[in-house]
Amino acid sequence: MYYFLNDYSEGCLPEVLEALTATNYEATPGYSTDDYCLKASNTIRDRFKCPQAAVHFLVGGTQTNFTAISAFLRPWEAVIAADTAHICVHETGAVEARGHKICIVPNHDGKLTPEGIEHVIRVHQTGTEEHMVLPRLVYLSQATELGTLYTKKELLAIYEKCRALDLYLYIDGARLASALASSACDFVPEDLPGLCDAFYFGGTKNGLLFGEALVIINPALQPYFRNMIKQNGGMLAKGRLLGVQFGTLMLDDLWLRAAKHANNMASRISDVFLNAGLPLASASSTNQVFVTLPTALAEDLSSEFAFEFWARFDDTHNVYRFVTSWATKPESIDALGKALVSCHAS
Amino acid sequence: MYYFLNDYSEGCLPEVLEALTATNYEATPGYSTDDYCLKASNTIRDRFKCPQAAVHFLVGGTQTNFTAISAFLRPWEAVIAADTAHICVHETGAVEARGHKICIVPNHDGKLTPEGIEHVIRVHQTGTEEHMVLPRLVYLSQATELGTLYTKKELLAIYEKCRALDLYLYIDGARLASALASSACDFVPEDLPGLCDAFYFGGTKNGLLFGEALVIINPALQPYFRNMIKQNGGMLAKGRLLGVQFGTLMLDDLWLRAAKHANNMASRISDVFLNAGLPLASASSTNQVFVTLPTALAEDLSSEFAFEFWARFDDTHNVYRFVTSWATKPESIDALGKALVSCHAS
Amino acid sequence: MYYFLNDYSEGCLPEVLEALTATNYEATPGYSTDDYCLKASNTIRDRFKCPQAAVHFLVGGTQTNFTAISAFLRPWEAVIAADTAHICVHETGAVEARGHKICIVPNHDGKLTPEGIEHVIRVHQTGTEEHMVLPRLVYLSQATELGTLYTKKELLAIYEKCRALDLYLYIDGARLASALASSACDFVPEDLPGLCDAFYFGGTKNGLLFGEALVIINPALQPYFRNMIKQNGGMLAKGRLLGVQFGTLMLDDLWLRAAKHANNMASRISDVFLNAGLPLASASSTNQVFVTLPTALAEDLSSEFAFEFWARFDDTHNVYRFVTSWATKPESIDALGKALVSCHAS
Amino acid sequence: MYYFLNDYSEGCLPEVLEALTATNYEATPGYSTDDYCLKASNTIRDRFKCPQAAVHFLVGGTQTNFTAISAFLRPWEAVIAADTAHICVHETGAVEARGHKICIVPNHDGKLTPEGIEHVIRVHQTGTEEHMVLPRLVYLSQATELGTLYTKKELLAIYEKCRALDLYLYIDGARLASALASSACDFVPEDLPGLCDAFYFGGTKNGLLFGEALVIINPALQPYFRNMIKQNGGMLAKGRLLGVQFGTLMLDDLWLRAAKHANNMASRISDVFLNAGLPLASASSTNQVFVTLPTALAEDLSSEFAFEFWARFDDTHNVYRFVTSWATKPESIDALGKALVSCHAS
Repeated sequence: MYYFLNDYSEGCLPEVLEALTATNYEATPGYSTDDYCLKASNTIRDRFKCPQAAVHFLVGGTQTNFTAISAFLRPWEAVIAADTAHICVHETGAVEARGHKICIVPNHDGKLTPEGIEHVIRVHQTGTEEHMVLPRLVYLSQATELGTLYTKKELLAIYEKCRALDLYLYIDGARLASALASSACDFVPEDLPGLCDAFYFGGTKNGLLFGEALVIINPALQPYFRNMIKQNGGMLAKGRLLGVQFGTLMLDDLWLRAAKHANNMASRISDVFLNAGLPLASASSTNQVFVTLPTALAEDLSSEFAFEFWARFDDTHNVYRFVTSWATKPESIDALGKALVSCHAS
Repeated sequence: MYYFLNDYSEGCLPEVLEALTATNYEATPGYSTDDYCLKASNTIRDRFKCPQAAVHFLVGGTQTNFTAISAFLRPWEAVIAADTAHICVHETGAVEARGHKICIVPNHDGKLTPEGIEHVIRVHQTGTEEHMVLPRLVYLSQATELGTLYTKKELLAIYEKCRALDLYLYIDGARLASALASSACDFVPEDLPGLCDAFYFGGTKNGLLFGEALVIINPALQPYFRNMIKQNGGMLAKGRLLGVQFGTLMLDDLWLRAAKHANNMASRISDVFLNAGLPLASASSTNQVFVTLPTALAEDLSSEFAFEFWARFDDTHNVYRFVTSWATKPESIDALGKALVSCHAS
Repeated sequence: MYYFLNDYSEGCLPEVLEALTATNYEATPGYSTDDYCLKASNTIRDRFKCPQAAVHFLVGGTQTNFTAISAFLRPWEAVIAADTAHICVHETGAVEARGHKICIVPNHDGKLTPEGIEHVIRVHQTGTEEHMVLPRLVYLSQATELGTLYTKKELLAIYEKCRALDLYLYIDGARLASALASSACDFVPEDLPGLCDAFYFGGTKNGLLFGEALVIINPALQPYFRNMIKQNGGMLAKGRLLGVQFGTLMLDDLWLRAAKHANNMASRISDVFLNAGLPLASASSTNQVFVTLPTALAEDLSSEFAFEFWARFDDTHNVYRFVTSWATKPESIDALGKALVSCHAS
Repeated sequence: MYYFLNDYSEGCLPEVLEALTATNYEATPGYSTDDYCLKASNTIRDRFKCPQAAVHFLVGGTQTNFTAISAFLRPWEAVIAADTAHICVHETGAVEARGHKICIVPNHDGKLTPEGIEHVIRVHQTGTEEHMVLPRLVYLSQATELGTLYTKKELLAIYEKCRALDLYLYIDGARLASALASSACDFVPEDLPGLCDAFYFGGTKNGLLFGEALVIINPALQPYFRNMIKQNGGMLAKGRLLGVQFGTLMLDDLWLRAAKHANNMASRISDVFLNAGLPLASASSTNQVFVTLPTALAEDLSSEFAFEFWARFDDTHNVYRFVTSWATKPESIDALGKALVSCHAS
């Protein structure tokens, strides 16, 4: 079975495994108070040029999202997000479970716009505002759920709108590495701290066993965050595992090389589909490929390839998702190409 | 100033005030454990023909909605509601503040449909369901936020769909009296317990100082509800005030007469607007009238009449809401008619 | 039946009933945005000499406590309270239901001490503080659950300790009127704003149908409080009922006269018990009397008098609570005196 | 530095590391739906002889505790726990943050008793029960925070009391392996399912990188638990890491051997202290040693040994905690023995 199901199918990058092995018998203090975490935090602050930022290591994305969002907001405050946002669709209502409404905006290619944000604000300030939630934080993902990217100009416009409207901007970076590694991305890591109040830099989907690095730029959002992590079950006892992993990932931009590989593999898959005359369903320039396939073809492929149903298209077609990672091998894509040819032929 | 701002502008029906006065110096046990509450509960059970129902008296609508919804649901369960629903728009995220996501369905004249409900269920059962909330309760209002009514057939279709999909049906009856009193309503109070799992019968908007009677039909939803009321701040110390008020409201169907009066007054307002050639914006058959007015005309009227801006229509028109109640006087509507004539003339 | 069960057994003071009656047919805007509420707020600010305070009217005490506490705190912050505190014992876990732990301190005559507060802080700051909640708000009641009073010196010592330890001080004033009216109270209403960050001035237990006035002194705690009230179901639609009632209660210090009457009646009950050789169980100087009675005597009395079992004393005795109010009549106490004599005689 | 700070200072058992390495490049479905998790679940069900139990793998203990507790309870329900319980003291109020009060019982050697539980129930059922939380779940740890153990008879007595009082019994097994491996434990793993409604079998403190296996015996508590895990951020994307680790830990009772080693090392530490005439502060028979040391001695030791301050004893002594694990080496304890001798000598 060739695996395009997601970018967390395998374990971790060999360098990460080596580092975990090399440090396995060291004794360190717990809960990410060790030197590995300290150093990894510093490296992240350096790489993203945000010396004043607070960096926290959490285990997974949903955990990071709801812990950050509920730490940043007061009870009557709400989130603005696209209807396709991960927090809206695939986190079992974790944000609402912490008490916060999500004000949904229709997406454009998976993205929010300043106009969409402004519309929510206008609707919520009708003079009887106390009967409504107060939108206070904008959530977006880079890359988006559809694999698309915000340009620097787009992000800047959104962040300026946020500041004008007294909104925090929080960026879900589950696939931030893939975004920054994309040839379609027009900004560098160092730009990010100037474009938001907080973001997370995902490790799970870029070759770690697990782990997300939350970077809180805005000093007002930093205090007591470790209490919040602990209360929400995100404080790993053997926290140094996060430090060791992120330290390795940051070394010589391993993260960037891993993400570029994944993007290249995705690009190849796109080519394979386009060559077979099969239309892509999203302008993804990262490590996810969305393609519209005849249902019958998808069924045929599924005996040999693992991929995900994404959405219904019409009576005879659906949209499917193929995801690549640091672990994807070119041979798997060659096999996909051959399978498409033989399916066509038959 | 003639008041059409809402149906909670005045105090209470004279009969209610008399009853409160007559009982003022009696000593009773607190927290709605008194005989007045007991009797009022029985009367409500009799009137709605639901001898096994649990009846609870709460102070206000938002309180009733979130207390009931969060008592009925488990943490991972969610609500289905129309985008215009009161809980979605005007309760400051109270349902989400108790941890529950609301899955929004576009409304049809303020109403939900079985198809809309089924669509939510389909979207949430994609095989990876644990990443999504579990929709478990349908919320609707009778009358709706737009003053429209569900027919018996419509409600029955929704309730059957709910039972087929393992969903509870909860009816917000802030204006249930107005609905049941409407000439456009094709069912009687006694039908309601067969059409839902729980509903509330609103007093605040039908002539009480305050108070909503929550009627829980489904026995599975009844246990420990008083603990839930107390925990959510809805247990009135002098609870007998609710029993005295509801007891009076139920006597000889005072509630129905009061609601009919309000509906008649609304009907007159509709006529006044239609006679002036001004189009109604909703097919309301209850005590709310939505009318599209030139902005300039609305401004003129606002010096003498209190009413609410509802929504923008176009550059020169908006939709406005005029609400009537047990306390609305025909003279006020005559004055409105005259004002419209004189505005036209000028 | 003579009623000493509690101080919310009857309706309201005649002056309050008259005011409600006199204003019943006036139309006002809803949700306490009316002039009656505005004026009553001003009167309270004047009476307590806190011109910058925010004043909010809520319906009941539990609602006021959890709305204020959860508005004032962040998720990882906790409350310090005496083990006898109302929020610990009789509010169905409403504070915890909003996510906040209560750190319990053993009471001294129902009261907290600076030492008790400091002990909690010491225990919670052990260097691994993120594994513990952060105590941030001290809750106390004046009068306490046992009817006792804090002296000005005691309150000041607690408030100074709070400021030194970065803690808010919140005073539950369900029976604040009775406290301030007590001959044992050594400070005046105008002193209170200098002794805490917020307090509420209870109406329910001092002759209103319902209603508590929350006074927020600390400006940092004031923003967006109305959103919080609405979200927690505490915003009364016919909010002017609160303004009318509190306006009346403040007029010519009606509140003080009502509370003094209640205190006098309680004092008489104490005398009756002491004269009968029955020992008081608490040094209450307000409107609650705690007395240790032989179980058999209590049973005899209960056929004619309503009062509450409070706590077990020994195999043949229990502590019982007798409560007075604005509505208590001297005749009732005379009857109690006679009953005690006849019980003794028999 | 010799490390006795805790049992999560090192990485993982060599066998576990090998298994992770061997499976690193396999592709599996995510979120613990893979075969490794399936098999590990089965092995756990077999080992504990509970074929109908639901087994879930979570990342850490706090996460497991609050996810289970808040899944099992309704909003008005509360937990009963000893004052020393981990959820009371070291989880940043995580249980309260999900809305549930913890009713605290004074501990006996870190343990609960049936009498303590019954006392809480008695206090909470005074006839006005809706003003109080409803205690519904008993939480205890085996081994306890003080390293002590419940005997089979004690656990059975508690569980019978729970069933009589309609309470669930949930056992925190962060150190369950150490408990079951102790020579002082008078029951076998197979007994556990008959002694509680749910327990967790901790991996973090017994040689895994991370991971706790929650075993839900009571079928009423099983439904939709995966939604709850996801909503609470406990669903690991690369879930097979938990399956691979627990699978290895269960193989040939590796868990038992690892725990026995830790216990033996702790026993040696106890001997070292007793031989030096230093009194133990707790009757621990597991992998934690609590010893009362002169402050000056502790300071001396701290230059070479890492251990934790536990509690103040008197002006010149404190209680300190020394913890052992699968990774503790006899040489470390020999060094401790020598240091004690030399300290004494000096």
